[in-house]
Amino acid sequence: MIFEQKEIQLQPYKRGFHSITEAVIRAFPEIKIIEKGFLKVFIKHTSASLTINEDADPSVRVDFESHFNKMVAENEPYYIHTYEGSDDMPAHLKASLLGSTVEIPIAKGRLNLGTWQGIYLCEHRNYGGARKLVLSAFGV
Amino acid sequence: MIFEQKEIQLQPYKRGFHSITEAVIRAFPEIKIIEKGFLKVFIKHTSASLTINEDADPSVRVDFESHFNKMVAENEPYYIHTYEGSDDMPAHLKASLLGSTVEIPIAKGRLNLGTWQGIYLCEHRNYGGARKLVLSAFGV
Amino acid sequence: MIFEQKEIQLQPYKRGFHSITEAVIRAFPEIKIIEKGFLKVFIKHTSASLTINEDADPSVRVDFESHFNKMVAENEPYYIHTYEGSDDMPAHLKASLLGSTVEIPIAKGRLNLGTWQGIYLCEHRNYGGARKLVLSAFGV
Repeated sequence: MIFEQKEIQLQPYKRGFHSITEAVIRAFPEIKIIEKGFLKVFIKHTSASLTINEDADPSVRVDFESHFNKMVAENEPYYIHTYEGSDDMPAHLKASLLGSTVEIPIAKGRLNLGTWQGIYLCEHRNYGGARKLVLSAFGV
Repeated sequence: MIFEQKEIQLQPYKRGFHSITEAVIRAFPEIKIIEKGFLKVFIKHTSASLTINEDADPSVRVDFESHFNKMVAENEPYYIHTYEGSDDMPAHLKASLLGSTVEIPIAKGRLNLGTWQGIYLCEHRNYGGARKLVLSAFGV
Repeated sequence: MIFEQKEIQLQPYKRGFHSITEAVIRAFPEIKIIEKGFLKVFIKHTSASLTINEDADPSVRVDFESHFNKMVAENEPYYIHTYEGSDDMPAHLKASLLGSTVEIPIAKGRLNLGTWQGIYLCEHRNYGGARKLVLSAFGV
């Protein structure tokens, strides 16, 4: 049984949805030593999140930003947690809708993703800064 | 430590929410050899997803389809990723809201689900075809 | 490889979002024996859920309840699964939007959470009762 775990810091991204598939693979060559197992990516924040989605056409990520901004609008009259700015409470809500962990099977030292799948960093704050991830790989 | 992993293809399902609990258990007898551990199910697609919910009354799954169609409508004026059809971009959004992985504890060779819980395949495309899953079971 | 798993029952919580970080840590001292690994928390219900979010200011959890009640309203005309009360079908939908599992890396016997992160129990029913969780810790 192999269990590898490491913490990394991403470059800062602007608000929106960004592909980080290549950045994760580059930062974590330990994936290659696993015959069958899992990669887990955990984000240590409550106003940014992770998801798996279409990694080919960047217009999908633009539509994600538009739709989440409508579904979780700023300045709703019922928000009471408002002192960190109008983008803050929506960021918390979006983060829980999308989640803080993604997992991908590893087969023969490579991520066993579907043809179109990739990992998105979902940056929900206007100025979220450099986000920290915990990368784990385990298996045999 | 036991780590079993296998890829399967489901039959094609029509758009909507479908119980696949029995299909998964049937396809993966390796669950039985695990005393305590986890089943992970990963879907290799970005326009279909997986979730755990009420597996007894099929009307719940009908309401899921109605509600997701309202919460993530087709033909929103702000969509720019539109060339694969009006059901495509909503399918990507629904897939990320629900997620690509479900996990269930295994206890004494059986899924340790709550009384009402089961696994749903959430087919968000009109003609999604046969979807591929990666089934993993690990534990002791 | 260490694999610990145990089932616990929480105290009943009223409808809304509640921090259970301390309750989980208290109930599961097995976390301390893991040098690097993962805590998984699984909820055995389809009308309550788990998420990771801001654990410091309780106003965030109030806004979660307000927003989810708007995004998934009661008494929608298209609901057909209505015989268990007006809070029932929305509870199922909210549960799948948020998810039934949270996972947190363990480093040196402690949860490796971000500064603001904690575990929420999301109670979506008016009278949900005492909810059951399966706690698992694995790693080396």
